[in-house]
Amino acid sequence: MSILVVGSVAFDSISTPFGTVDDVLGGSACYFSTSASFFTDVNLVAVVGDDFPEQHLDFLRSRGVDLEGLKKSAGRTFRWKGRYDYDLNEAHTLETHLNVFEQFEPVLPASYQDAEYVFLANIDPELQLEVLNQVKNPRLVASDTMNFWIEGKRDALIKTLGRVDTLVINEAEVRQLAGEPNLVKAAEIVRSFGPKTLVVKRGEYGVLMFAEHSIFSAPAYPLEEVFDPTGAGDTFAGGFIGYLAATRNLDEGNLRRAIVFGTVMASFTVEQFSLDRMRTLNYEEIENRYRRIQLLTEFSSLDD
Amino acid sequence: MSILVVGSVAFDSISTPFGTVDDVLGGSACYFSTSASFFTDVNLVAVVGDDFPEQHLDFLRSRGVDLEGLKKSAGRTFRWKGRYDYDLNEAHTLETHLNVFEQFEPVLPASYQDAEYVFLANIDPELQLEVLNQVKNPRLVASDTMNFWIEGKRDALIKTLGRVDTLVINEAEVRQLAGEPNLVKAAEIVRSFGPKTLVVKRGEYGVLMFAEHSIFSAPAYPLEEVFDPTGAGDTFAGGFIGYLAATRNLDEGNLRRAIVFGTVMASFTVEQFSLDRMRTLNYEEIENRYRRIQLLTEFSSLDD
Repeated sequence: MSILVVGSVAFDSISTPFGTVDDVLGGSACYFSTSASFFTDVNLVAVVGDDFPEQHLDFLRSRGVDLEGLKKSAGRTFRWKGRYDYDLNEAHTLETHLNVFEQFEPVLPASYQDAEYVFLANIDPELQLEVLNQVKNPRLVASDTMNFWIEGKRDALIKTLGRVDTLVINEAEVRQLAGEPNLVKAAEIVRSFGPKTLVVKRGEYGVLMFAEHSIFSAPAYPLEEVFDPTGAGDTFAGGFIGYLAATRNLDEGNLRRAIVFGTVMASFTVEQFSLDRMRTLNYEEIENRYRRIQLLTEFSSLDD
Repeated sequence: MSILVVGSVAFDSISTPFGTVDDVLGGSACYFSTSASFFTDVNLVAVVGDDFPEQHLDFLRSRGVDLEGLKKSAGRTFRWKGRYDYDLNEAHTLETHLNVFEQFEPVLPASYQDAEYVFLANIDPELQLEVLNQVKNPRLVASDTMNFWIEGKRDALIKTLGRVDTLVINEAEVRQLAGEPNLVKAAEIVRSFGPKTLVVKRGEYGVLMFAEHSIFSAPAYPLEEVFDPTGAGDTFAGGFIGYLAATRNLDEGNLRRAIVFGTVMASFTVEQFSLDRMRTLNYEEIENRYRRIQLLTEFSSLDD
């Protein structure tokens, strides 16, 4: 079952303690769709400028990503420039040039409107709502957001969240959105805005999922080399939603498996710059790392 | 099998967003021994002043803590004053008065010298070594330390670590001790100093244990009310070592269980000021929370 994703396709210029790259392929929709493509087909809605090279389109197509919804506009593609210091949990934004993204009005091709699995990446919540208004009867709507929208478009965001099933956001943003420092309480407040399931991304500390009847904690995979954390959150979401769409099963046990697959995908993408690790990754590696996360977390019950 | 613990017994004055208390029972050895007492007997080596009230001694005795090694010196008991803001992961020290602790020279009663399980709480590494020199043939030596000793007594610390089996320290201190920002690499460096097992405390993010052949990740128990984080690390260590001593089993599966019991104990102690939660806690509650941590972390294997 294919997924619809709406978000950014961008050029990133990134500096980490381990190196520097300029104008590499990035953007939330790119990371998400490439990650999800290991599990299912993806329909991508985004905009690029006329400077966007065919080779990147070829890469996305080679991953089974449908690009009918990718608009090419006159002008330059969205560009982001950022730096990470040794604390790789924190990105320092140096420059943001929205370029063609500033006028982005997501329009869904007719063939995308039956989407059953939808991921609204971190864009203006008004645009997220416009997308939802073009989808007929989704089975699962997931979304991301950020401090910029929580501060600047809170009402629109709350309205959009009323139609979201699963919100995937950073820990600090959960607290900010709820206005509550305790994470467990904050999660309940955010869930009262609409999303039945809240997935809290904690960087190198992993993920907490607050579902209807339980909390699930998944660690990040401990890596000796974290090269570039850019896109880890969207790559996580791609594995998470990708697995759910592929298995067409939203029960709690499967949600937990999907969280672990998301964690696995994120652990790979940070090993290299841009989407480079995704270019060589195969499904056997993904399954092997899933098993290693199981070994990382298992302990015997009191009744063993 | 009883445990020997050496550390501080103190009066704490604590302010959190939820309240303020003055001169309540605290100190690393107190938190550790009370927590471990739910699993086994504890022999405590520490010093208090002549202002230390009998009621606190009665409490420790009621928990099965042997106080033959607790010296009463002329002068005032060690006092610590600290504040927590909404970020409860970080303690702001306002005042430290070592008082009688400044002249502390740990002397083990003859009956303690056969100790099989030893916990050297966060004190001067030279004193930690003096204690080890008085123990005949320990089966497990665990220790804690802090940035103050890493900076000020590095050589003594490294020497002591050469005789430690299990080091239990905070994440930032692992990085500092190793001089390496990546935690996985830092853990290998610290293990090369002596400890076969390194237990990394990450506050509300739980614990990572680096053992000989594997890494184990345990989450913290998500709490709606974290009232006072003081003593969480020593309470964790008390549950961890307490369970190991009670079961007399140091294989990897049992180390993992012990980590979870430590996590359980820490989750209780932060629910109230000082050791207050420990005063009412019972073993059934401990086992119930162990089971809840299992529910929090379990997910199905790929082969299910």
